[in-house]
Amino acid sequence: MSLIIDCHGHYTTAPEPHNAWREAQKAASKEGRAPPPYPAISDDQIRETIEANQLKLIKQRGADLTIFSPRASAMAHHVGDQQVSADWAFHCNNLIYRVTRLFPETFIGVCMLPQSPKADLTASIAELRRCAELGFVGCNLNPDPGGGHFTHPPLTDPYWFPLYEEMCELDVPAMIHVSGSCNPAMHATGGYYLAADTVAFMQLLQGDLFSRFPNLRFIIPHGGGAVPFHWGRYRGLADMLKQPSLDRHLMSNVYFDTCVYHQPGVNLLAEVIETKNILFGSEMVGAVRGIDPQTGHYFDDTKRYVDALPISDAQRHAIFEANARRVFPRLDAILKRAGK
Amino acid sequence: MSLIIDCHGHYTTAPEPHNAWREAQKAASKEGRAPPPYPAISDDQIRETIEANQLKLIKQRGADLTIFSPRASAMAHHVGDQQVSADWAFHCNNLIYRVTRLFPETFIGVCMLPQSPKADLTASIAELRRCAELGFVGCNLNPDPGGGHFTHPPLTDPYWFPLYEEMCELDVPAMIHVSGSCNPAMHATGGYYLAADTVAFMQLLQGDLFSRFPNLRFIIPHGGGAVPFHWGRYRGLADMLKQPSLDRHLMSNVYFDTCVYHQPGVNLLAEVIETKNILFGSEMVGAVRGIDPQTGHYFDDTKRYVDALPISDAQRHAIFEANARRVFPRLDAILKRAGK
Repeated sequence: MSLIIDCHGHYTTAPEPHNAWREAQKAASKEGRAPPPYPAISDDQIRETIEANQLKLIKQRGADLTIFSPRASAMAHHVGDQQVSADWAFHCNNLIYRVTRLFPETFIGVCMLPQSPKADLTASIAELRRCAELGFVGCNLNPDPGGGHFTHPPLTDPYWFPLYEEMCELDVPAMIHVSGSCNPAMHATGGYYLAADTVAFMQLLQGDLFSRFPNLRFIIPHGGGAVPFHWGRYRGLADMLKQPSLDRHLMSNVYFDTCVYHQPGVNLLAEVIETKNILFGSEMVGAVRGIDPQTGHYFDDTKRYVDALPISDAQRHAIFEANARRVFPRLDAILKRAGK
Repeated sequence: MSLIIDCHGHYTTAPEPHNAWREAQKAASKEGRAPPPYPAISDDQIRETIEANQLKLIKQRGADLTIFSPRASAMAHHVGDQQVSADWAFHCNNLIYRVTRLFPETFIGVCMLPQSPKADLTASIAELRRCAELGFVGCNLNPDPGGGHFTHPPLTDPYWFPLYEEMCELDVPAMIHVSGSCNPAMHATGGYYLAADTVAFMQLLQGDLFSRFPNLRFIIPHGGGAVPFHWGRYRGLADMLKQPSLDRHLMSNVYFDTCVYHQPGVNLLAEVIETKNILFGSEMVGAVRGIDPQTGHYFDDTKRYVDALPISDAQRHAIFEANARRVFPRLDAILKRAGK
């Protein structure tokens, strides 16, 4: 029996004491005080928030497994300093770990990194290593930890290389995912996310990162931002910039998820992007929570769009399961150990 | 007989003395000197650059008329101060004016504005008025004159209102178009343009600009950035933000061009966006100048993609001509005076 693996889920419904602690931490940081102690959160509190939300929707929609990470918009790497980010990432990732222990059949962890605008990646590497030991299978990498002004070096810059070395060593991929926007001109889920996805892809196109790191793997979420819609533009830009063709230059290392919330968009994705580069994802419970009046179904029930694609069973199996197992080898190993 | 009107052409092939003057102007500005006098450029020099490039391609590809503006990536509003931008816009727009006088059947002017990061819009309004008197039918509005960090107020902010008032008074639309990027993390035509298009649409979605300016019209170029690909996401976000549906909220005022350089992208555009909101455009000679090895045709020969759409003749006429005449009433008046 094949599995349906959602590569993009966030714990957007974390227990309230967790969020309250974050507010207290931010206030303390502003005033130069130490943060209060992290509150006790019971297993039941975690169970409730999961059972009433993600687990319910996963079952209703017919998925099996979600690759689960802390709420992306709340990573807010632009807030505070390295220590603030390190403490916040530690607690967020621990909460994900507890979810994966309470629901080991359904949730596999991906960690956030304690990035901070002025910091190097030492703390991020340490947290990635800690989380890998806890059974996490990947990380979310924020290409713009400044929060909405794109002031960080491009993903091809040596600034990032120590983290990439660790990722290759651990054999974990990263989802390229910005966080909340502190820019009033840029709405997070409606502007910033898609802009950052698009900009990230172009950074990779301009560079030559994967000849240095041939095993490095990135998932660009939200269907790759604007990229598949403009696939001809990118093929043409690769040519103009005298880069190899996209398939040779990038598409052994770059993947797009299916977080595109209508059928025509997912159709386009599957038409222009090779099946091997598409991972099922829903970003659930996430950016858009309503029901599409045109279909009567949730906008983010992306499984329906993939189910409706005019593709072969083998292709659908690749999108739902096989590609995720290839991109996340540690997930594959966990599933194999469980006889799946 | 119907016309084929390309709403998005730039004078990317301007005579070399024009570009050399710009370099001299920038150097002078850096050193606090006055710029050198603007060089004499003959009609023949202009004719040559147009006949060998845009005019040749327009004829080869079978369009009739191009709405023509200064090279977008060279507007570079982030360079120098208000006076530097004012001088540069003056000369760029004059060159466009001369093209429209030399080739009145083929080119209609759209002006760049002398925006400058720290300036208000007084100079831009004056230049828009001057250009309208010269027969220009619209303007290009840069939502991020800082050049790649999105530090300007959103398009719904009162900062922009004086310009909008003038646009409504003159009955001219604006194409929302950023310029070159001074951000090493953001490639202009591959990252910045599409990111800015997407961010601009979301700014409009969040706001309520068109109830204040019901006659204001914006063209979002490059097929609307990521927007049509994520149309479900935007429909869902409008719902989540308790805004009216997109058709009522934005789509009497917002238009997308067809600068999407492959057939599947243009197909998606035409599938999800109402015909009345799509204007033929090619961004020619522009971002991508090569030939698509998959088709044997130029990537930016977007007329082919529109020709191949499974739509009615009336719809194709709307995309090629009628919508442009509606969005640019001054163009319509010029064409009517010419018996077209």
